[in-house]
Amino acid sequence: MLSKSQIKLITSLKQKKYRQQYEFFVAEGVKTIKELLQSNLELHKLYTTESFNIDAKLEVIISDSDLKRISFLKTPNKALAVFKIPKTKVIDSSGLIVALDAIRDPGNLGTIIRLCDWFGVKELVCSAATVDCFNPKVIQATMGSITRVNISYVDLVSFIKECESPVFGAFMEGSNVYSKKLPENGILVMGNEANGVSKEVEDTIIEKISIPRFGTLQATESLNVATATAILLSEFRRNLVVKF
Amino acid sequence: MLSKSQIKLITSLKQKKYRQQYEFFVAEGVKTIKELLQSNLELHKLYTTESFNIDAKLEVIISDSDLKRISFLKTPNKALAVFKIPKTKVIDSSGLIVALDAIRDPGNLGTIIRLCDWFGVKELVCSAATVDCFNPKVIQATMGSITRVNISYVDLVSFIKECESPVFGAFMEGSNVYSKKLPENGILVMGNEANGVSKEVEDTIIEKISIPRFGTLQATESLNVATATAILLSEFRRNLVVKF
Repeated sequence: MLSKSQIKLITSLKQKKYRQQYEFFVAEGVKTIKELLQSNLELHKLYTTESFNIDAKLEVIISDSDLKRISFLKTPNKALAVFKIPKTKVIDSSGLIVALDAIRDPGNLGTIIRLCDWFGVKELVCSAATVDCFNPKVIQATMGSITRVNISYVDLVSFIKECESPVFGAFMEGSNVYSKKLPENGILVMGNEANGVSKEVEDTIIEKISIPRFGTLQATESLNVATATAILLSEFRRNLVVKF
Repeated sequence: MLSKSQIKLITSLKQKKYRQQYEFFVAEGVKTIKELLQSNLELHKLYTTESFNIDAKLEVIISDSDLKRISFLKTPNKALAVFKIPKTKVIDSSGLIVALDAIRDPGNLGTIIRLCDWFGVKELVCSAATVDCFNPKVIQATMGSITRVNISYVDLVSFIKECESPVFGAFMEGSNVYSKKLPENGILVMGNEANGVSKEVEDTIIEKISIPRFGTLQATESLNVATATAILLSEFRRNLVVKF
């Protein structure tokens, strides 16, 4: 059985201000929850229609209709878990870092977190205007990758200025990334979906890079930020495999 | 004013069987419609809250509330257009071709169409089980690219067998794409979101390729099919720019 206060807490976690106040976030679906349970995350409570055989104090068996009441999904998937938001770790600025300047779409952020995980990028640094990584739609899109990438919200300009790594940014008018010899470590800055990299952040960027367009003149005006991040991370990493 | 029969026709076009019966599809939003109007597509009727200054016979000025009644979007964007579905052109099998084996998600197909447009891939060949490219969500995601890529639905196994180009397929266990010398032309086969490339299609593939994972052992189990297509198309095209 679900208590009123439980329902109130869970549904409040749709909003960032309550996630920050209570320091909890919601994850849904058996697969995602199982992946998160295997990480260092602290489970607050699991609401599920079938037992996960975990510590009984942490598990509440509920009906399908109760799950429907608390789920953020159109089609709830058997379980909903409330996890403690982990403390942000200190940023290790020695490796390859992805920095996001005001990415707004939760699906894009989720895809970029998965890409960081795939390409072994341990640090994802976001401007304050970037969508919250504990937004339920982001959690849904990351498929568990969120536990393997350290995500920090910072003042991007100060962060970049304090870092000693070379700073690359994706710009339409940047130089052809395929002709560049990219370093193993550095910062890759990706800009907002509609407006690109902001002026203040642009001023901190040393190398502007771009993905050449091969279509006709009329071709699509830009790549989606998540697909552009995919291609650029692949360019940074392929050098580790291919020796010129 | 909207007639009952107009409303009935438009709302029926959400479903593939009616799109096929009437040979019409729906596009929404000022930007997308303007891009489509600049192409060879034949406009059947434009329903809009503000005039586009086109042939008055083709334009119907409607109220916001009428637009809400016919729109497929949560937040309608000023206009909805009904276009004639163009005749499929004969496939030119001489260039680089992307072949999709049962891609189900409209957002993924839309992103892949945009990628084809960006990377100058003129032919996109889809198995019959792939989501319909005139699905409103696909049209929304393509941002006009759909007019610049020739999309055909075929029996993929017969198509590939008849083609003389080398056939590459994305597989988890494929060989490292970064170490391959990819040809300028060929077929790149991408598989279903959950199940990958089907057995029958797999048998036609000559070279299995994969994108290496750089993360830890626990890292994300797969890349999204649209981001994987982005990276692989980039690998095919970068050779045109970078000479080894």
